This record gives sequence, structure tokens and C-alpha cells, in this order.
Amino acid sequence: MSADERLIPLTTREPTPAAGPPVFERVGIVGLGLIGGSIALAARRAWPSALVIGVDRNEVVEAAVARHAIDVAAADLTIVSEADLIVLAAPVRENLALLESLPDYIDKPAIVTDVGSTKRAMMAAAAALPAHLVFVGGHPLGGATAQGIEAARADLFAGRPWLYTPPAAGHDEVLARLFKFAEGLGAVPHAIEADRHDRLMAFLSHLPQLAASALMQVVGDAAGEEGLALSGRGLQDTTRLAASPAAIWTDICATNADDIGPAIDALVSVLRQARENLDRADALGRLFEAANRWRAVLTDKRLP
Amino acid sequence: MSADERLIPLTTREPTPAAGPPVFERVGIVGLGLIGGSIALAARRAWPSALVIGVDRNEVVEAAVARHAIDVAAADLTIVSEADLIVLAAPVRENLALLESLPDYIDKPAIVTDVGSTKRAMMAAAAALPAHLVFVGGHPLGGATAQGIEAARADLFAGRPWLYTPPAAGHDEVLARLFKFAEGLGAVPHAIEADRHDRLMAFLSHLPQLAASALMQVVGDAAGEEGLALSGRGLQDTTRLAASPAAIWTDICATNADDIGPAIDALVSVLRQARENLDRADALGRLFEAANRWRAVLTDKRLP
Repeated sequence: MSADERLIPLTTREPTPAAGPPVFERVGIVGLGLIGGSIALAARRAWPSALVIGVDRNEVVEAAVARHAIDVAAADLTIVSEADLIVLAAPVRENLALLESLPDYIDKPAIVTDVGSTKRAMMAAAAALPAHLVFVGGHPLGGATAQGIEAARADLFAGRPWLYTPPAAGHDEVLARLFKFAEGLGAVPHAIEADRHDRLMAFLSHLPQLAASALMQVVGDAAGEEGLALSGRGLQDTTRLAASPAAIWTDICATNADDIGPAIDALVSVLRQARENLDRADALGRLFEAANRWRAVLTDKRLP
Repeated sequence: MSADERLIPLTTREPTPAAGPPVFERVGIVGLGLIGGSIALAARRAWPSALVIGVDRNEVVEAAVARHAIDVAAADLTIVSEADLIVLAAPVRENLALLESLPDYIDKPAIVTDVGSTKRAMMAAAAALPAHLVFVGGHPLGGATAQGIEAARADLFAGRPWLYTPPAAGHDEVLARLFKFAEGLGAVPHAIEADRHDRLMAFLSHLPQLAASALMQVVGDAAGEEGLALSGRGLQDTTRLAASPAAIWTDICATNADDIGPAIDALVSVLRQARENLDRADALGRLFEAANRWRAVLTDKRLP
């Protein structure tokens, strides 16, 4: 594929208010799914003069161009060699491979971040990067049921936390720029240590996903198609996450197995306790009441 | 308490279109929470000439009168002695006690139904009723996050299934009347055998409730209040049911323990399998994909 075939010309930019001068002049986004595509849309809206460069399979970059999400695009990494910020927005294990190959494409200083749900594996891999590439892990807590560039939205991150896991030492200025970048996209940035991030997400995100998928499989197998017609809104809500794409989640589980394992154990233990207390109103009531209390806390925390 | 103190005078009735002549002239509803209150509102809307009689604690019947949900009310069962339909709408074990005491209050023929999430225990208790009281189990699949008479809505049952578990033999005419009653309230009635109902609901409703409550307890305990602030929409949806009232659910679990137990076992088994396969993308992918397929079926089944 020649450079000409890869490049897609500038698309028309919608006039939108700027969020001050661009934090990064040339933002390269590798992976234009829901998250990568939403970062592209939000960055173009925030900084009209910045160049947003997209990398993905041809049909995806075409869809991204059609949505005015990116300025230029290609199906391989050569095009991000000029970017001053590179955002890896593929599934985690693909991001790991991308991180490893970045030095083959980029010999100028650049900041690299990602958007994956696990951070330790990326931080460990980033330790092998040459000095001109500074990696800071990133995790925007956007999330939506819909997937892909078609579902991308410039306001996906509005008011939502954006977690960064900085490298062990130095790079305060890099972190400050990434905070400004997240703020420009409407998010609320926080710094968190990678170990703590992964342990917390094992409970806040990875366990709910596994619980929803396991529940959906068990209920579907038991009730069948005819039985499911008699279900209510409770099952609908509780299994919404079961629609999440398998490829993203097998990567997340593989790169956080040692934190997710104990989280599953804790859930299994409470479920077995509940099973033993099904006809003991006092003991079972304590489980429901503890859940009531935590749910009230969670409802209070609901962000915009 | 004298009869005068108990009775609350007729409230002003909103003019609403009638759904033909009343299926029952005098509907007694015992328990004016979300479901009982919504039945009252829907019945008054459907049949302006029918009398809707409510029984609950004083403050609840006052709230029901304020919402124009009932015509007359009291805090004990004497008032339903004239009803031709009695709907037991308290938690399951309270309904069991009410069913047992009904013959002390009612010596004229009447049809009795309930709205609980388990049916075998009620059907078994109903076998001891005298011949002038015919019991048919009922289970409207309404459901909403909010609870209590304040949350009651005349359209709670619109387009939703309403399951009836008829007694072993005869009473076809009674069932036909109850079907018409549910239809008048906007629901879609189905008949189902009590054993099958309870087994199906163990999976469709009781297991999701226990999974959501157990998940909320485990995640809350691990993440704490500060950690929960970093959760996303996935946890919010997956744990919505954790807000359900403990008293209703301890009764449901106690009266369906032998069906819920194996349902919990099935979920625990899939969770443990997932734990063993966290870093095996093929095996774990099959779980996520099976869940994807069932979730797609469930989404197609979504009722209004």
C-alpha cells in the first residue's frame, strides 16, 4: 500500500468552540472504536486547529472520516510518526503489541497513552520503550452499550473520571498535559497507581461484567427463548453488560487475572452463603440490607 | 377500632374511559404498595362503576386515598367481606397468613388471588380454604425501581405478562374472569403451572436479584465509598436490583428455596469455570459469546 492510498484527505470540520490552544498539535489515535472514535470527535471539537490522525482497518477509517471524526487516516502506524500524542485505543493485548512496535515507526519525542481497562501489563511493557517515548497509562470511564465508530460521541466523557497511571518517577509535566487533554475532552482526570487501579477495576468493572455474562448464560440456558419472554426489567438491567464484545473482555481478563480471581471468589462466597440461608430471613435479610446500603451510596455517586 | 373510624369516605373519581362492564363489582386489595396500589389505580381507571376497597396500615391507606387509588379503606380485613375479588398484595409470607385468616372474615363466595413472585406455597395453602373461596395464584410482571403507594401507576402493567396459576381442576370460568380483569388493567394474561412458574422465576427473577445484591455487597465492601465514585454505568445497571426491599425478598427466597438453590449452583459453577479460564481466551470467549447470544434474544423479547 502506497502512502497515497493510505492517506485520506482532510474532511470538512464543523465549527465548534475551542478549549484554548491545543494541548497537542497532532493527536494520533490507533483504534477507532467507541472510545477511540469518541476521543477523535471530542478532540476535534475542543481544538479545531489540532490535527487528528486515525489508524484502523480501511472500512473503519472510512466510517470515521464520514463522521468527521478524523483529519487524516491510514491502516498502519507510519502515519502516527509525526504525532506528539499517540493514543492506543485497541483491545488491551493489541495495545501491548502496538506499544512494542511503536519504536519502529517513531524516532522523535512523543507522549504515548492508552485507554484500556487494565494498566499493570501496559506499564510493564512500557518500561522497555526508548527514552524518547514517554508512556502514561490512561483509562477514561466512559462506556456505553453501543460499540464501534458508529456509536462514538464527542460528549462520551463529559463529567466522567479519566484515570491516569503515571510512570514511577518524573514526567510531572507530561502528566499535567494529559490532564489538560482529558479536561479539554470534558472529563475529570485523576492519577492512580497502576496496582491500585487494576485491583479496584477488578471489582468495579471486571467482576460486574463476568457476573452479568455468567448470569445471562445460566438464565438463557435454563429458561430458553420462550421463558425469556416472561422476564422483567430486572433481568434486562442486570444482564445489559452481557452484550459487551468478547474480544475486549478476554484481553481484560487475561491481563488482570490475579486481581479478578479473588474478586470472583468473594462473589462466589457470598452467593454460597445466600444459598445456605435461603430460608433464614435474618441472615439473608442482612445480605439484602448490606446491598441496599451500598446501592444507596452508589446511587448518590452517580455522575452526569 | 370502630367501623366508622376504619372507613374512609369515597374519594373523587377522575373521569376515565371504561373497559366494558366491571369484571368484578367490588375489588378488595390487601396491601397497597407499588403493585397493590397500581392495581387499584388501574382498576378504577378501567371500571369507574366498580368499588375499589383497600386494606393497609392507616398511613398507607391515607396516602392511597390522597392518590385517588381507592374508594374505601381500612386497616383490617373486615372491610373485604363484601368483595367479589380479593387481591392479596403483601409480601409472600404475609399473604400466606392472610389466606389462612380469610375464612374468618368472609362467608360469601369470593375469588381470591395474589401478586407474589412464588406460587407453590400459596397454592398449597389455598388447598385448605373452604369451598366458597376459590384461589387462583397471580403474578403480574410489572416491577419498577421505586416502591410503595407513592410510586404506584395505573399503567404499570401495560403490555406486561400477568401469570395465573389455576387450581388443579375446574374453575375455568373463574380463570376466564381473572384473564379479563388482567386485560382490563392493560396486561397480557397467561396460565402457567405453579411448579413451572417457580422454577422459571428462580432463574428469570430470583437469581438476578440475589446476584445483584451479592455483587453490590462484594463490590461495596472492596471498593468503599471512595472507590465507588470511580465506577461506571455498567455497575449502576448490574446492581440496580440491589435496591429491592429486603422484606419482600426474604419471603420469596424462603418460599422458593428448593428452586433457587440449584439456580445459585449453576451460576457459581459458571463463575468458577470463568475463574479457571481467565487467561484462556478461547474458553473464556465462549462464555462471553454464549452470553452475547442470549442477551440478543432477551433484547428482542423486550416488551413495552
